[in-house]
Amino acid sequence: MNAEQLVEIEAIRQLKARYFRLMDQKRWDELRDVFTADVEVRTPDDTGDETPIIGNDAFVDMLMSMIGEVTAVHHGHMGEISVDGDEASGVWSMEDHLWWPPQFGLGHMWGCGWYEETYRRDGGHWRIASMYLRRIRVESDSKQLFPREGVPS
Amino acid sequence: MNAEQLVEIEAIRQLKARYFRLMDQKRWDELRDVFTADVEVRTPDDTGDETPIIGNDAFVDMLMSMIGEVTAVHHGHMGEISVDGDEASGVWSMEDHLWWPPQFGLGHMWGCGWYEETYRRDGGHWRIASMYLRRIRVESDSKQLFPREGVPS
Amino acid sequence: MNAEQLVEIEAIRQLKARYFRLMDQKRWDELRDVFTADVEVRTPDDTGDETPIIGNDAFVDMLMSMIGEVTAVHHGHMGEISVDGDEASGVWSMEDHLWWPPQFGLGHMWGCGWYEETYRRDGGHWRIASMYLRRIRVESDSKQLFPREGVPS
Repeated sequence: MNAEQLVEIEAIRQLKARYFRLMDQKRWDELRDVFTADVEVRTPDDTGDETPIIGNDAFVDMLMSMIGEVTAVHHGHMGEISVDGDEASGVWSMEDHLWWPPQFGLGHMWGCGWYEETYRRDGGHWRIASMYLRRIRVESDSKQLFPREGVPS
Repeated sequence: MNAEQLVEIEAIRQLKARYFRLMDQKRWDELRDVFTADVEVRTPDDTGDETPIIGNDAFVDMLMSMIGEVTAVHHGHMGEISVDGDEASGVWSMEDHLWWPPQFGLGHMWGCGWYEETYRRDGGHWRIASMYLRRIRVESDSKQLFPREGVPS
Repeated sequence: MNAEQLVEIEAIRQLKARYFRLMDQKRWDELRDVFTADVEVRTPDDTGDETPIIGNDAFVDMLMSMIGEVTAVHHGHMGEISVDGDEASGVWSMEDHLWWPPQFGLGHMWGCGWYEETYRRDGGHWRIASMYLRRIRVESDSKQLFPREGVPS
């Protein structure tokens, strides 16, 4: 690691900060720009499915339908980022809370896990190119949601 | 962003870390030095009022009266800092817990939000020059406290 | 602080990130390498004892026996790191959750505190050389565990 790489690491750290903040502030248009157009997102512990969602529009559209009416708090911690030219990879610890409006009858969800992700420099800006979320623990008022828990293998 | 700015960003990150730690450790005299003498602080979701508190002494005195006897845990996350000469600005995600002593009858408060703030280099040291806290969610054992919740507009 | 020190600070920040992640992922062999062979660890609010545990093997062996079967989430926040040649020191805010398997009858523990620690460059790698955890608050389903709370003096 050298001082030039630190500049890239800080840029990626602030990129991931925008990911969390723009999602919780529901600034969907700005959130699209956090990702590459061909981003691959897998959240198997939330969706029950390893099939990736492909594309920033598809992913943000899915978020809008899933949490558009939900008060959401997503926090990231202790990023480990390494840069190699115009590509980079990272791991972030995360914790999130979702509170559904009363009419949904789903109450509150709280979860923890890690994002494993890659980044790509694209048009002079770092963007998230792939994101894989594994959960270590989920607690939910509703048994219908997030049935899985345990340490990822 | 360049390597010299990174030095300033790290200095501001550690400044904000001292803000959180010195407040929770109730080191009030050291906490005063985290702010400029003319700091402007607004916490409308906590106080119900957009009127700023002006001055590090006034703000720390208010903190001492509000949480001097309260066990307080304040955590900051995912700072986005940008530096312009001797001035800088930042956004921090935050989460806090307050536990009042039993005789207060107020129980426990838990909240999340963002600080939007500015910094100024002052006598060779970065200090917080303004701080604006918006809440996204507050849960409280007491209905008298923190009645507001929802996504800031 | 200068740009060269920033490289060391980032290396130590990622070291501490590995500490948290490898512990929660139960990657015990990799976790041993986070510490110097002669690391001194004191966790008086957890163990009731100021006597240090000496050595990375002794400490990781103790962790394995204490939380080997427990779902554990440890998060670190707002590190304040200063570097002096091949030595460094830091403070980290922390929050942890432990969920024991049902047969233990211990339920869930949630705590917050600070790590005060030192680091040493050892064979080209930064490692944790000493770690002192003080708790500000612990809440536990079991009265047998972690009876202490309050602001460290």
